[in-house]
Amino acid sequence: LAPAPTPITLSSLFVANSRRLEPVAALVEQALSGDRRSLARLISRVENGGPDSWSALSTIYPRTGRARVIGVTGAPGTGKSTLVGEIAKLARKNQPDQKVGIVAVDPTSPFSGGAVLGDRIRMRDLSGDDQVYIRSMATRGSLGGLARATTDVVKVLDACGYDLILIETVGAGQSEIDIARTADTVIVVEAPGLGDEVQAIKAGILEIADVLCVNKADRDGVQSTINALHAMLDLGTASKGALHHGVLMAAPDVSDQPADRWRPPIIKTIAVEGKGIDDLMNAVEQHRAYWVTQPDGQQRARLRAAIELETVLRETLLSRLAARVGAAQLNRTIDRIAAREIDPYTAANQLAQA
Amino acid sequence: LAPAPTPITLSSLFVANSRRLEPVAALVEQALSGDRRSLARLISRVENGGPDSWSALSTIYPRTGRARVIGVTGAPGTGKSTLVGEIAKLARKNQPDQKVGIVAVDPTSPFSGGAVLGDRIRMRDLSGDDQVYIRSMATRGSLGGLARATTDVVKVLDACGYDLILIETVGAGQSEIDIARTADTVIVVEAPGLGDEVQAIKAGILEIADVLCVNKADRDGVQSTINALHAMLDLGTASKGALHHGVLMAAPDVSDQPADRWRPPIIKTIAVEGKGIDDLMNAVEQHRAYWVTQPDGQQRARLRAAIELETVLRETLLSRLAARVGAAQLNRTIDRIAAREIDPYTAANQLAQA
Repeated sequence: LAPAPTPITLSSLFVANSRRLEPVAALVEQALSGDRRSLARLISRVENGGPDSWSALSTIYPRTGRARVIGVTGAPGTGKSTLVGEIAKLARKNQPDQKVGIVAVDPTSPFSGGAVLGDRIRMRDLSGDDQVYIRSMATRGSLGGLARATTDVVKVLDACGYDLILIETVGAGQSEIDIARTADTVIVVEAPGLGDEVQAIKAGILEIADVLCVNKADRDGVQSTINALHAMLDLGTASKGALHHGVLMAAPDVSDQPADRWRPPIIKTIAVEGKGIDDLMNAVEQHRAYWVTQPDGQQRARLRAAIELETVLRETLLSRLAARVGAAQLNRTIDRIAAREIDPYTAANQLAQA
Repeated sequence: LAPAPTPITLSSLFVANSRRLEPVAALVEQALSGDRRSLARLISRVENGGPDSWSALSTIYPRTGRARVIGVTGAPGTGKSTLVGEIAKLARKNQPDQKVGIVAVDPTSPFSGGAVLGDRIRMRDLSGDDQVYIRSMATRGSLGGLARATTDVVKVLDACGYDLILIETVGAGQSEIDIARTADTVIVVEAPGLGDEVQAIKAGILEIADVLCVNKADRDGVQSTINALHAMLDLGTASKGALHHGVLMAAPDVSDQPADRWRPPIIKTIAVEGKGIDDLMNAVEQHRAYWVTQPDGQQRARLRAAIELETVLRETLLSRLAARVGAAQLNRTIDRIAAREIDPYTAANQLAQA
């Protein structure tokens, strides 16, 4: 006899909350005082989301906004993990009192908890340094949950005094692009000779680039990669939609944009040899110096605020509804949709009105 | 003088609805009767989302659930676009009365509307065939919007009599994995010699694979790729979490799973030469034959229903709130968050309570 199907149980959110956990307020206090183990536990709690996490985040919020946040995104094979490690090493060398956080987003492992290859490589060089904190993010399969969790973890690091925070994402997914866009500066990493399909991907992530990095610059074809990037920049495909976001914000009229918009500089690096990292960071600094003086900069802060609000609203509204409606009715509704007795649109409307 | 920043305006959702559009009911009727131009316009409306789209979708919902839906996902460079084209060609050749829909998700181009390279290549072979409908999806930057739009477009094609629907995604993003998981069968495409970082990605997408396809099987290293996949399957990393989803469903207890779980077969193909496609489709057919008899199959239907409900709920709740609160208050809230006068968690809670 075949076993009965596993029943669908309550949200992982509420399951997590029903466990006995140490009070989050105490954890926040210890993490803010510099205790690394508390920081790690606080980050796990924040990753899991839910009201408990929101209370921690609203406590620390006034202390956030100090860190420089740099997004580093690129297709697999561009060497961005090594690059992130080198940026961290250079930052620590140039300013030894500076704390550096690395948040590596592993979007492709929703279940395994993320054994990240690049992470292990980085760890070898950076793990001895207690002013560097490395965290790999993996998602639990919730739609949009990865973007929410990542920005929240960045806030925890920011509040805990991390001066420079590097967010590493594979530039090949919508949530990953959303994550990168919450950074102050987005470095898009390319590499010569990655083939046609990767070229097609470039067209998309170019639009969020503030600085373009051509890594593995000792490879054949580096000049043609640079030429191709210049050609795309000339076409004006880059940055065009960068200030548009989803449901809460409509696209700004492009004609309103200042004519002298930032053109992403193209920087060559060889990350495995540590070459070009200083040039790259100079370009990041120039970008920062540019946008703090521009209306773009103000718009960017509003964009980030809108993304944050929308992200939290989505989670808040859904978990409020799940709590009010209860597991039994949710399960009945799911059964009825699976049996095609009701369509999900009508069902969602009925639940939303209840 | 620098121009003022572009004001953040109302949701694109409501902007779209305020335009004069042809009545969606008429469009639905024409699309269902087989008119391709109406189908294209209906798909665009559904892609845009909003109440108008939901009314169309609840009308067509009783006609859905007939199509076979196959997800084809893989990293850039695996040749999955070519593979999807070949599957469509074979399906048309074997059953000339069968209609085939292709939904190509281009996750990396949130703004440009997606000029997909692979799409153009496929078009060359398939564009003369009026029983094949190809649609490229690009997102407008909304968190989670791509998954919602893609499953909705699949429903439209399903209702309009498309017997086989192929969803092509880059297997390197959370939304893209969510999309693939809504298919009846998920083919994960690999290729020899894509380098270390791509290997790391495999660990994640392997978990959603029902059938593994090693494309470009004429390349060096094909046997070591196959061996690596077998080793990963032996480790039991594959499919473990496949029946778990996000907020509405908790992970099932793995010990409850039947011991004779489906083991994804590994099929070699050379898509550019049309080789191995029949073997691949036989494996897909075996997977279908397996899971309709298993409790897994029933669980899968519930998983899909839960994903659909959650996706629609997220959109519904957010757009209801945006409509009730209004653009002025949303903009004020965004300004206050940007100025750090309020944190997004408290703001979201205040908005949700209003």
